[in-house]
Amino acid sequence: MLHGPNLNLLGKREPEVYGSTTLDAINQQLEQASKGLEIHLSILQSNHEGVLVDAIQQAFGQQQGLLINPGAYTHTSVAIRDAIAAIDLPTVEVHLSNIYRREAFRHHSYIAPVAIGQISGFGADSYLWGLHALVQHLRKSIPA
Amino acid sequence: MLHGPNLNLLGKREPEVYGSTTLDAINQQLEQASKGLEIHLSILQSNHEGVLVDAIQQAFGQQQGLLINPGAYTHTSVAIRDAIAAIDLPTVEVHLSNIYRREAFRHHSYIAPVAIGQISGFGADSYLWGLHALVQHLRKSIPA
Amino acid sequence: MLHGPNLNLLGKREPEVYGSTTLDAINQQLEQASKGLEIHLSILQSNHEGVLVDAIQQAFGQQQGLLINPGAYTHTSVAIRDAIAAIDLPTVEVHLSNIYRREAFRHHSYIAPVAIGQISGFGADSYLWGLHALVQHLRKSIPA
Amino acid sequence: MLHGPNLNLLGKREPEVYGSTTLDAINQQLEQASKGLEIHLSILQSNHEGVLVDAIQQAFGQQQGLLINPGAYTHTSVAIRDAIAAIDLPTVEVHLSNIYRREAFRHHSYIAPVAIGQISGFGADSYLWGLHALVQHLRKSIPA
Amino acid sequence: MLHGPNLNLLGKREPEVYGSTTLDAINQQLEQASKGLEIHLSILQSNHEGVLVDAIQQAFGQQQGLLINPGAYTHTSVAIRDAIAAIDLPTVEVHLSNIYRREAFRHHSYIAPVAIGQISGFGADSYLWGLHALVQHLRKSIPA
Amino acid sequence: MLHGPNLNLLGKREPEVYGSTTLDAINQQLEQASKGLEIHLSILQSNHEGVLVDAIQQAFGQQQGLLINPGAYTHTSVAIRDAIAAIDLPTVEVHLSNIYRREAFRHHSYIAPVAIGQISGFGADSYLWGLHALVQHLRKSIPA
Amino acid sequence: MLHGPNLNLLGKREPEVYGSTTLDAINQQLEQASKGLEIHLSILQSNHEGVLVDAIQQAFGQQQGLLINPGAYTHTSVAIRDAIAAIDLPTVEVHLSNIYRREAFRHHSYIAPVAIGQISGFGADSYLWGLHALVQHLRKSIPA
Amino acid sequence: MLHGPNLNLLGKREPEVYGSTTLDAINQQLEQASKGLEIHLSILQSNHEGVLVDAIQQAFGQQQGLLINPGAYTHTSVAIRDAIAAIDLPTVEVHLSNIYRREAFRHHSYIAPVAIGQISGFGADSYLWGLHALVQHLRKSIPA
Amino acid sequence: MLHGPNLNLLGKREPEVYGSTTLDAINQQLEQASKGLEIHLSILQSNHEGVLVDAIQQAFGQQQGLLINPGAYTHTSVAIRDAIAAIDLPTVEVHLSNIYRREAFRHHSYIAPVAIGQISGFGADSYLWGLHALVQHLRKSIPA
Amino acid sequence: MLHGPNLNLLGKREPEVYGSTTLDAINQQLEQASKGLEIHLSILQSNHEGVLVDAIQQAFGQQQGLLINPGAYTHTSVAIRDAIAAIDLPTVEVHLSNIYRREAFRHHSYIAPVAIGQISGFGADSYLWGLHALVQHLRKSIPA
Amino acid sequence: MLHGPNLNLLGKREPEVYGSTTLDAINQQLEQASKGLEIHLSILQSNHEGVLVDAIQQAFGQQQGLLINPGAYTHTSVAIRDAIAAIDLPTVEVHLSNIYRREAFRHHSYIAPVAIGQISGFGADSYLWGLHALVQHLRKSIPA
Amino acid sequence: MLHGPNLNLLGKREPEVYGSTTLDAINQQLEQASKGLEIHLSILQSNHEGVLVDAIQQAFGQQQGLLINPGAYTHTSVAIRDAIAAIDLPTVEVHLSNIYRREAFRHHSYIAPVAIGQISGFGADSYLWGLHALVQHLRKSIPA
Repeated sequence: MLHGPNLNLLGKREPEVYGSTTLDAINQQLEQASKGLEIHLSILQSNHEGVLVDAIQQAFGQQQGLLINPGAYTHTSVAIRDAIAAIDLPTVEVHLSNIYRREAFRHHSYIAPVAIGQISGFGADSYLWGLHALVQHLRKSIPA
Repeated sequence: MLHGPNLNLLGKREPEVYGSTTLDAINQQLEQASKGLEIHLSILQSNHEGVLVDAIQQAFGQQQGLLINPGAYTHTSVAIRDAIAAIDLPTVEVHLSNIYRREAFRHHSYIAPVAIGQISGFGADSYLWGLHALVQHLRKSIPA
Repeated sequence: MLHGPNLNLLGKREPEVYGSTTLDAINQQLEQASKGLEIHLSILQSNHEGVLVDAIQQAFGQQQGLLINPGAYTHTSVAIRDAIAAIDLPTVEVHLSNIYRREAFRHHSYIAPVAIGQISGFGADSYLWGLHALVQHLRKSIPA
Repeated sequence: MLHGPNLNLLGKREPEVYGSTTLDAINQQLEQASKGLEIHLSILQSNHEGVLVDAIQQAFGQQQGLLINPGAYTHTSVAIRDAIAAIDLPTVEVHLSNIYRREAFRHHSYIAPVAIGQISGFGADSYLWGLHALVQHLRKSIPA
Repeated sequence: MLHGPNLNLLGKREPEVYGSTTLDAINQQLEQASKGLEIHLSILQSNHEGVLVDAIQQAFGQQQGLLINPGAYTHTSVAIRDAIAAIDLPTVEVHLSNIYRREAFRHHSYIAPVAIGQISGFGADSYLWGLHALVQHLRKSIPA
Repeated sequence: MLHGPNLNLLGKREPEVYGSTTLDAINQQLEQASKGLEIHLSILQSNHEGVLVDAIQQAFGQQQGLLINPGAYTHTSVAIRDAIAAIDLPTVEVHLSNIYRREAFRHHSYIAPVAIGQISGFGADSYLWGLHALVQHLRKSIPA
Repeated sequence: MLHGPNLNLLGKREPEVYGSTTLDAINQQLEQASKGLEIHLSILQSNHEGVLVDAIQQAFGQQQGLLINPGAYTHTSVAIRDAIAAIDLPTVEVHLSNIYRREAFRHHSYIAPVAIGQISGFGADSYLWGLHALVQHLRKSIPA
Repeated sequence: MLHGPNLNLLGKREPEVYGSTTLDAINQQLEQASKGLEIHLSILQSNHEGVLVDAIQQAFGQQQGLLINPGAYTHTSVAIRDAIAAIDLPTVEVHLSNIYRREAFRHHSYIAPVAIGQISGFGADSYLWGLHALVQHLRKSIPA
Repeated sequence: MLHGPNLNLLGKREPEVYGSTTLDAINQQLEQASKGLEIHLSILQSNHEGVLVDAIQQAFGQQQGLLINPGAYTHTSVAIRDAIAAIDLPTVEVHLSNIYRREAFRHHSYIAPVAIGQISGFGADSYLWGLHALVQHLRKSIPA
Repeated sequence: MLHGPNLNLLGKREPEVYGSTTLDAINQQLEQASKGLEIHLSILQSNHEGVLVDAIQQAFGQQQGLLINPGAYTHTSVAIRDAIAAIDLPTVEVHLSNIYRREAFRHHSYIAPVAIGQISGFGADSYLWGLHALVQHLRKSIPA
Repeated sequence: MLHGPNLNLLGKREPEVYGSTTLDAINQQLEQASKGLEIHLSILQSNHEGVLVDAIQQAFGQQQGLLINPGAYTHTSVAIRDAIAAIDLPTVEVHLSNIYRREAFRHHSYIAPVAIGQISGFGADSYLWGLHALVQHLRKSIPA
Repeated sequence: MLHGPNLNLLGKREPEVYGSTTLDAINQQLEQASKGLEIHLSILQSNHEGVLVDAIQQAFGQQQGLLINPGAYTHTSVAIRDAIAAIDLPTVEVHLSNIYRREAFRHHSYIAPVAIGQISGFGADSYLWGLHALVQHLRKSIPA
């Protein structure tokens, strides 16, 4: 699970846009859900595009899938897109807010074309649905 | 649950894009999931923009939420958008395929700005995640 | 008089945009005004593009003019435009709201170039001014 | 009532576009209609953007509404738009011709988003309908 | 053979654009040509996008090819495009007028990329050439 | 009959796009068809825009119609367009491939607006249908 | 002869763009040329769009042709364009500099489509060629 | 100091956008600041583009610098831009509001490329910072 | 003097656009004017872009200036532009018709930015004014 | 005070664009000014987008305002914009050069819409005016 | 080796853009390099698009690779692109100048998408690197 | 030599796009070539835009030239562009793949206008040709 820039401010920041749940609370929900799904989940938040690219590369051979909220880098980072395409792990893109209700520059995602799917608009729940969707996708394509 | 144009062909049509599950199979999964969620679900598929608008209007006062795969009308129908905005029921937009991997004209959705969220790219599972996400959204905002 | 999609919800729908008058109330005002003007007025509302096209075609030879609020189809229907051009009856396009104050995609009308004129922004009164303007236009060009 | 640039040539100029009625004739019709409506009407025509801005500003506190045919300044004057927004008087924008049937640069109006409504295409009658619509709007919102 | 919206008015409508032949006359020519080609031809005209989509779907398994003049829906209907792509029958798109000589919005066809070819500009003869071209295409690819 | 640039390579070049018929074979089919139609056909292929312009000019007073596959010059040559407009002979534009399925720059034709019609997508048969369509058009408008 | 805004600064202003001849010198050359051509020439310079519109209107019935360097209003004034179209006098547009070598916003002229012709790039001589071209045009179309 | 159109309404107009300080108050602050800076300041407000162009031209040889809030003419006046470029006096452009937070057409300034700098968003203080910045710029480049 | 493609058809071609004077007549006028101006004039017309480029190159060292009507190549030829820039001879671009009254693709000239000036809209007289303007330009910059 | 990428090279880099003052000199001026204003100023320069985002976040609760020259990130960083919006501290954006005189891609700022104001073009003085403007803004809104 | 239009002027033309080496000198360097590489090199320069297309076609079956500087035709010739695609020989595109530092219309190459690679900006050396790169590419893919 | 983001994955990543050579292998080839050229080469790869900017700055005064494959930052980084422009060292931009055959957003390079030249499409050989071209450029301009 990768959280992009400024997501560490969740719950403290523009609650009318992003809700009042903190990133810690979301991470706890994700870890609890991971237990229920019997999977291992690694979590990282960074404001640095390069750190996110590094982390995506390190997932190669270590992880089976990628859940990512690229935050602001959704709209500007070809480097993150290329990293995801390079490691070729099933990737699910999630957004807290409905990006299609916001400024026009947020309607375009460099990440969407290299992800299997996108979930946006459900606040902190976007992460949970994204985790479930990713795991179910992996279990379908990688039989036990 | 509203299915837009050509979705009645699911499973028979371009399986490399839309998968091999039929609409009946999807509807059965949705009904089974509805039982598990203890909700009532009405399902309609139509190739007619006007029939979909009528159905959305009739949901007003009858239903508590709307799950919709607007199909081709996603990209061309202001009428469906206006109907959703008018009845003001929480709406989740789902797509079988990742519309951001397809032709440029499919990247724009008239529906997204009036929906609470969008889920795309998980094949038939997009519907299930959409149903869960809608119910959870309703249960959070409308306490029992 | 043709009412386009979702106008049957008038008075129940987004009153901050469209006002609180119902379609029935508007139709009664139009019929009363028709009596004053000593004309016969036929009224139809439909959410179906095809039904509106059929109705426009049937006006040919039956009616002397067309008053239309194409609603959402204003911005998407070449078929309605072609029907109006084909029957070549004087047509007045009306809108409840000032469409130039709303989303950019509502600033373009496929209908305006085939209408004699356009009246927008006066709420239910747009219809009344449209009816008067149409009748006066007809009486000027078709002397008794 | 403000008439924009070149409208003083009405009746002498491109009658196939603007009709054969002169500005004097229109003004007489407007004054006669004003008597019928029991209102006072001030009329000014100018080819100067600045004179029109001055006149709009002077209407503040003196007039209850503004009827304007901005002519060519419809498409180029942010200053007139700002003046109307500043004085915040109900404003109706009228056009003799159907501007949506003419060159593309005439389809955009800087004035429309600060007006309550727009009436175009009815020749000299556009003014009369505009006057009636403005007065009715004022009488509804400002009870006697 | 599918005729799109307003084509039922042929011969009565804008003869300077579409010629003076009626749709019945065209259909008779097509049926006569079908006899000459020893094929069976089903013909439908509709002003309703949904009816055209239904008809295209019903052609699947019943017909060997599709001849279509989508009329105004050429420029606005993703639903008809998707239906043609879904049934995957060889499709020929025809137009009475040369659409490249008309308004800019008529230069784009949603249908062309899913058709085998396009014939435009020959009036009623466009249909006949389209029928011959479709049959010849089928006979080449499906040997007797 | 004018063949534009690179059409001399037909049958040797990108058969997945243009088919395996050579230009000679097409020309023989066209000549045979010309005999059946009792017309005289002159054929020229050139890779030179200027040679094509010269040939179009020389057709004036010598030929009764023009059948042209402008190849790459379809998208770049105003000179060929002007030559066709200047000699004012009925012209049919043909393309082997469906240009609307290819790169975006091939969707625009400078020639289409000065042709009577366009036929594209039927491989070598596009030429034959074009020849028939041109002759029929000429016979209709120029009675024997 | 109408000179638009800032042309009174000629010779004092950006000589690398406009040359070192003053407006007075140009006017003297024009008057001398007018004597040679046996015509009467009225000259006005103004920085005010409205004054230029007034002057164009006053030329109607007084003058036989209009020579104009609209300066900056070339690119922004629909009002001047409409005035020229309204009085319908043969008009020649001149520019000192080659406007196609300057900023992109100077490549578009609102005036060109209502002028008979345009002359640009010859410095003060642009005026002289414009005067000759206008007079010759008038003498050809209005025989003595 | 030049104030553009509608700035005479300051303090009376849309205070949520422009603040509640009147133009007189701003001018008094500017004059007081001028005393502190030991400079002479001339002030003019006009709604007329031409009057502003005249005033800029008259500054040539009379003034050492220009402080301007072009108001609405920021976005539409090439004439004011050309006047500033012509007199070649150091010019500072100021705006009360942050124009980048407003409508898209207000994001473009014709004046900025001919000014030394731009200050926007500080309400009436924008003027004061602009005056200080201009004087400091002049004192640096023109040693006493 | 270089004449571009299709100009050999002058007088025979679209006289409502280009007038009824033939190219021979224009050339005779140009030669007569050349005698009056005491200059030598070489004339070439070609439909071939490459021939025009060759001719421009050969003018280098042989001629003192270039008068060109690039016809259709005005809008499409970077090669002619580059040739003119390379030989660096003073060049005047002329057009018979006012290209700003025609199709949008004719409003752009690749040649204008490398010419000293442009003259358009005066029919055959455009050539004469162009010749005079070029000679006067040369005589000013190259003193005898 | 945050300095964006490459600003550490100030004084060594393209002095014709950015002047000859070093970043150290600017920082000393800012610190001196801070003393005069009786405020505490923290200064950071970084070439890393992520480091700037981190620093903006850390300002939250620690600082009362933000002065930023985002350098190249002005035009590409949604992450910095989001960080500023998130911490909701009054922010002033400054630029050494007049960005409206440079390449088109430098005319757009992602930061401007979340800043209170922008100051550009005054070289190193932009910083000083920005600091004063920020402090004055804070002192007005946060009374002592 | 194909040299496009105006390259025969190299060394005589705009040396600040293209350097002072003549085409003959470049060709001698290329021939010398060919000897060192033990290959045979045919060289052609033409200003005629059609001649270049002919030459590319004739390379088919005669040559093993193509080195081309398409000059101005880089930006306008679909015919040359189609010829290269048709013969399907490995092609290297070279440019003397860095085309990305020049006018915007020179940033687009029709040739690049059908070449294996592009080398630009090294003056006459671009040719030499292009030749080496092409030979090395051929030797890798076609083992001796 | 600077390698941009994701280039450390070379040989492991999308071999159909980037080939099967690893970055280590490329670096060894570059070092071997450096020995042959008798130069010293420093090599860095980073996924961090800021690290690349730092490294470019540190090259100033330490290195004589810069060879860079900016990877994804080619299309998004103004900061890297500014750093290269600031240090003003001869820079060669290289790409493994032909970026003009890939997605449209990869056709634009922020780096190209500040580089002396660009080499793309030759796989790992692009680096070698880039190194040779850079060294030759330096040896020509900096005589020993």
